[in-house]
Amino acid sequence: MSRIAVIIDNGFEDSEYLKPAEAFRREGHEIVHIGRKEGAVVKGKKKETPVTIEREVSSLSPDDFDALLIPGGYSPDKLRAYPEPVEFVRAFVESGKPVFFICHGGQLLISADVLRGRKATGWKSIARDLINAGADYRDEEVVVDGNFVSSRQPSDLDAFIRESLRLLPA
Amino acid sequence: MSRIAVIIDNGFEDSEYLKPAEAFRREGHEIVHIGRKEGAVVKGKKKETPVTIEREVSSLSPDDFDALLIPGGYSPDKLRAYPEPVEFVRAFVESGKPVFFICHGGQLLISADVLRGRKATGWKSIARDLINAGADYRDEEVVVDGNFVSSRQPSDLDAFIRESLRLLPA
Repeated sequence: MSRIAVIIDNGFEDSEYLKPAEAFRREGHEIVHIGRKEGAVVKGKKKETPVTIEREVSSLSPDDFDALLIPGGYSPDKLRAYPEPVEFVRAFVESGKPVFFICHGGQLLISADVLRGRKATGWKSIARDLINAGADYRDEEVVVDGNFVSSRQPSDLDAFIRESLRLLPA
Repeated sequence: MSRIAVIIDNGFEDSEYLKPAEAFRREGHEIVHIGRKEGAVVKGKKKETPVTIEREVSSLSPDDFDALLIPGGYSPDKLRAYPEPVEFVRAFVESGKPVFFICHGGQLLISADVLRGRKATGWKSIARDLINAGADYRDEEVVVDGNFVSSRQPSDLDAFIRESLRLLPA
């Protein structure tokens, strides 16, 4: 079973957190919510889904987890305004462990400068940012490149979850 | 007196619209709210300030205005998901008329690909995107480069308004 970090802040796209987390748990994996302040309750932008931050990102290393999930909405924009979440994402990508990102999730990988030459997708508003960051941008429901699984939007969630589960050791 | 277009959508940073618009009107300039759907009411992210879209951006050209204001918040992210606002911004920049952008406002200029070699600033979360788009990024309260005036955040508004007014014919 895998231990999966979800890096999250206020304004996340509710379904992009809820559906993967539910699917990962159903398969027996563990979910740990990480963010800027331990104990803080962050909320989704549509349904105001409350999520409690269990571990503060500045205290963590990629060794603590087997995979990383980055939901979209405005959560990635809030996280990447600070160095600690960006450094954690950079270290996690460099560890070679699976990273799942959807919608605006790729914004954290842009700030971490880890997209050069990598196939990836994301919400259409950030397509130009992904390309400018060196990504090989694809307008597809799911894009898999090594340890990266990325999707564009909530309607891609089934494909996103399917391909993410494939990268998790059962 | 100048006729200033404000390109705006839901989730704008209230003060980054309210304060410049008030200052421009006080000096005798006219404000016209433009956006994706004529008659739509869009709201600010904090105080839910309501703004009615007076003109649909797809029906407009730079000839209709003397300057363009792009408030920040999540409004630019919503607008740049569609080609019409991006095309309008590109045409406006190419017209050489003044363009004022603050916080996330530069996201529209990134999508329009009009920042190469230009000095600019913006909210810290998009600093990497501005640099990747070819901007000469400055972490300063206001940056003036030809017809561009840009600032980072609400606390920069006094400087942003002061430098913007300098580019408007009285």
